[in-house]
Amino acid sequence: MAIDPAFQLALLRHGLLIGTGVPGIYGRGPRFEAVVARLETLIGALGATAAPEMMRFPPVMARATVEQSGYVQAFPHLLGTVHCFHGDDAAHAVLVDQVTCGDATWMTAQAPTDSVLTPASCYPVYPAVAARGPLPASSHVVDVQSWCFRHEPSPDPARMQAFRQREFVFMGTPQGAAAFREAWQARAEAFARRLGLPHRLAAATDPFFGWHGEIMATLQREGGLKSELLVPISDSDNWTACISFNMHHDHFSRACGLRLANGDLAHTACVGFGLERLALALFRHHGFALEADGL
Amino acid sequence: MAIDPAFQLALLRHGLLIGTGVPGIYGRGPRFEAVVARLETLIGALGATAAPEMMRFPPVMARATVEQSGYVQAFPHLLGTVHCFHGDDAAHAVLVDQVTCGDATWMTAQAPTDSVLTPASCYPVYPAVAARGPLPASSHVVDVQSWCFRHEPSPDPARMQAFRQREFVFMGTPQGAAAFREAWQARAEAFARRLGLPHRLAAATDPFFGWHGEIMATLQREGGLKSELLVPISDSDNWTACISFNMHHDHFSRACGLRLANGDLAHTACVGFGLERLALALFRHHGFALEADGL
Repeated sequence: MAIDPAFQLALLRHGLLIGTGVPGIYGRGPRFEAVVARLETLIGALGATAAPEMMRFPPVMARATVEQSGYVQAFPHLLGTVHCFHGDDAAHAVLVDQVTCGDATWMTAQAPTDSVLTPASCYPVYPAVAARGPLPASSHVVDVQSWCFRHEPSPDPARMQAFRQREFVFMGTPQGAAAFREAWQARAEAFARRLGLPHRLAAATDPFFGWHGEIMATLQREGGLKSELLVPISDSDNWTACISFNMHHDHFSRACGLRLANGDLAHTACVGFGLERLALALFRHHGFALEADGL
Repeated sequence: MAIDPAFQLALLRHGLLIGTGVPGIYGRGPRFEAVVARLETLIGALGATAAPEMMRFPPVMARATVEQSGYVQAFPHLLGTVHCFHGDDAAHAVLVDQVTCGDATWMTAQAPTDSVLTPASCYPVYPAVAARGPLPASSHVVDVQSWCFRHEPSPDPARMQAFRQREFVFMGTPQGAAAFREAWQARAEAFARRLGLPHRLAAATDPFFGWHGEIMATLQREGGLKSELLVPISDSDNWTACISFNMHHDHFSRACGLRLANGDLAHTACVGFGLERLALALFRHHGFALEADGL
């Protein structure tokens, strides 16, 4: 990777991002936020033909859901779990001393909660829809957006730890899922052209953990389950995935019991738009002075 | 507390909130989100006279900032810290076995990261402004919004673990901070009247931890440092704080070195709007069929 260090500095200098002292965790200035809002309007219009059901979830979700869906096993290095202090007055006195002295061992008293940081915006959707019972129609599409967290500290502003993802999630038949992916790949390429962004569609794999993950990545590649729309942002040699297309077969439906009216497990697929990455790509290719109303 | 259980059920049945299996963590339906968006527009207009600087931060922030500002010591029971798996392939094999068997001890392998969940939307603002050097003018106001997290699982939908806070943050002279609080208390009461919400302004204290916290609450009460605009939502006996007014003296400025042009530490104050609580109050008092364009 050859990340251009001038890119991050320019984003900070133009007030688009605000440093917080943690790599990949930035504040946003008004012009950056206006571009993200404009992107959301445009993406919403792209998805409107399917008359999707809108759901919005907070940046934290049930730990049980990521345990059941296999995310913990596949991406433990990326998942952020939420921990809390459960001690008494005596333990608190120790904690106060430690924090006051700048001694980070206060964190050893933190205990797990039932929540984790949402790793991808579609994860809370499947159990929420499954809880209603079998899908009434042969297909259902949900429009979801949330903040996501992945623990991958990086100096590359296009690889943030905290970012927003807008997704459309398909639930229905296997044929419907395949058609959904095809349609969205074409729609996303037209969208990138309309935004004036250089781009390329490519087969992809997820960053599964360890040697066990290499097997999973091979299966994903051989099954043609993931593709990405790549745009050059901070590194002209390694283009950045800005939109991804994912076929899940019945992976998520099996975990939460999501079924069609005929009793079969539903197949699911999703298209995810990385809002920060798309905004950064626009500033990279149209200049740091870009205003949302120019889009 | 006598929380009305029918209120939560009605919110779920009307598609305003979506259950996730964790108390206080809900998805939001489109009508709920439209009301929140409308509230944000109205609140933004209330604050526009000060020509505030807009900053937006993600739901996670630097752990160092909450350590330095005293939040960890004062509210360890509410703070969510973010932890991750840092193990190797062998540790991963153990984790996979544990998760697959539904054994929650996989979480003992989680190690702290540099991030915590943002506890109140103004926390990242102070170091971000201080990093620029002394305040150029005698006062500066920031308009900030973010998702916040507080670990207080409750069946009361008006006490969520994950919620959004819109804040205006004042930085400047002690006199300026006092005038800011006065002006916002009056503005907030007029806002509640305009929204048709029963309300009352009251002195308040924060829920500091333990016996040490009782002293802090006493100091806060005697100093008249916190007040709240209360509205009856889920419990007619115990009204819920929907807007809070906070005087910090030089507490945050001391932690991050925020100074006036003359070298004095700045005084800070903030007004915070609980967006979910205000939305819930509107549904409570104007009916579950309320639409955003009726506001």
